[in-house]
Amino acid sequence: MRYLKITLAYEGTAYAGWQIQPASHGLTIQGIVEGALERLTGEKIRVAAAGRTDAGVHARGQVISFATSSTIPVDRWTWALNSVLPQDIVAWEAAEVGPEFHARFSAKSKTYRYCIDNGLFPDVFWRRFSWHVRQPLDLAAMQQAADSLKGRHDFRAFAAAGRPVRSYVREIQEITWTRRDNFIYLDIKADGFLYHMVRIIVGTLVEVGLGKRKPTEMAAILAGRRRELAGPTAPPQGLCLERVEY
Amino acid sequence: MRYLKITLAYEGTAYAGWQIQPASHGLTIQGIVEGALERLTGEKIRVAAAGRTDAGVHARGQVISFATSSTIPVDRWTWALNSVLPQDIVAWEAAEVGPEFHARFSAKSKTYRYCIDNGLFPDVFWRRFSWHVRQPLDLAAMQQAADSLKGRHDFRAFAAAGRPVRSYVREIQEITWTRRDNFIYLDIKADGFLYHMVRIIVGTLVEVGLGKRKPTEMAAILAGRRRELAGPTAPPQGLCLERVEY
Repeated sequence: MRYLKITLAYEGTAYAGWQIQPASHGLTIQGIVEGALERLTGEKIRVAAAGRTDAGVHARGQVISFATSSTIPVDRWTWALNSVLPQDIVAWEAAEVGPEFHARFSAKSKTYRYCIDNGLFPDVFWRRFSWHVRQPLDLAAMQQAADSLKGRHDFRAFAAAGRPVRSYVREIQEITWTRRDNFIYLDIKADGFLYHMVRIIVGTLVEVGLGKRKPTEMAAILAGRRRELAGPTAPPQGLCLERVEY
Repeated sequence: MRYLKITLAYEGTAYAGWQIQPASHGLTIQGIVEGALERLTGEKIRVAAAGRTDAGVHARGQVISFATSSTIPVDRWTWALNSVLPQDIVAWEAAEVGPEFHARFSAKSKTYRYCIDNGLFPDVFWRRFSWHVRQPLDLAAMQQAADSLKGRHDFRAFAAAGRPVRSYVREIQEITWTRRDNFIYLDIKADGFLYHMVRIIVGTLVEVGLGKRKPTEMAAILAGRRRELAGPTAPPQGLCLERVEY
């Protein structure tokens, strides 16, 4: 048996998210990747992924791990896999790992980027990869609000229902807004993320940027630990899993 | 009667190009825009466009002109039009002009950008907007070859059959390759372009970049004035009409 770690980029537009769903919910990236692996190896392979991205969410650096008895040399794996993957999923790195490696449980941290198109009119080339917010956004206020989320906190207020977890405590190691031309990005790195956590953080910070909330409210939202205290969930297409650190 | 000049951005992926075609050839951007204008004004309006972009070619700064008896104020035109346009076509500037203004015939020059994805693996986010060329490209050689196209020449060797013109003489005012990360752009500005001209120039310059042709061959190709002397036509999705100068 060999153990592989493969890094994927994908456009999530056409998919019902990463995780395999009942057929009625549509195609998933996991389903497509496992189908491609079966075509390649003849084996029924179950893969683990670092992040279970939602429907419409993208990735530049999703990491998967799996075991296989295939003899494809490690430096041929990306080429072999890309030959059976659709155009919107690309494998760009492959490495052999030990049997103890697990794409999700071995991850030390993950970095997501959320992209807002802040132009007066939506950029037609970025509509699949950004959330268009036409109104001016106060980036300094948004950064001040973001700063109070930094560190180790109970993020229950920023978690959607639907994925029970043992603990809502996570550590945000980096949370930075950047403006470039008409676009605004949030780069956020944490040891783990709760269900919809980045999108609820972005939805809340945009309300700060619009002047609907004060930056100083964030501490009370965190302390309140109730989802309804935070803002709306930003749409999925602005979100991208950038990289996973091990 | 009022005369309007409107600037459009569009993603060409879903369309059979700018110009209205027999129905069997599929949707065109002109057809969609004229349909939107009719919904808005109740008039059957024929629009002129600065550049008749091919199927799959994009625009950030396509300019159209038309006459209308509509009383929509000029500062409401972009909003009104966007409310009836699909997501992949956006009107972002409107101005009232004189009756003598014609989007194509009044244009002094146009600038196109051609985008090559030169990464080892295709960037999933740019596959609709770039040509993926995996092999290393010699940008210095490509620029040297491009420089010999600068100025006023007969570009018959770089014109596809299918659109008869009185003269094949055009003046290229700017032709510059730029590298940014894994991407390579050609910015090309001229007083006018022949059918497929930018794509044939790019196809030929890429052969130079791959070492299949010498940069010094360009003068002979120009002088030969035969399409078969130049290289292949680069695919449409890398091309974008950036702006039109009047």
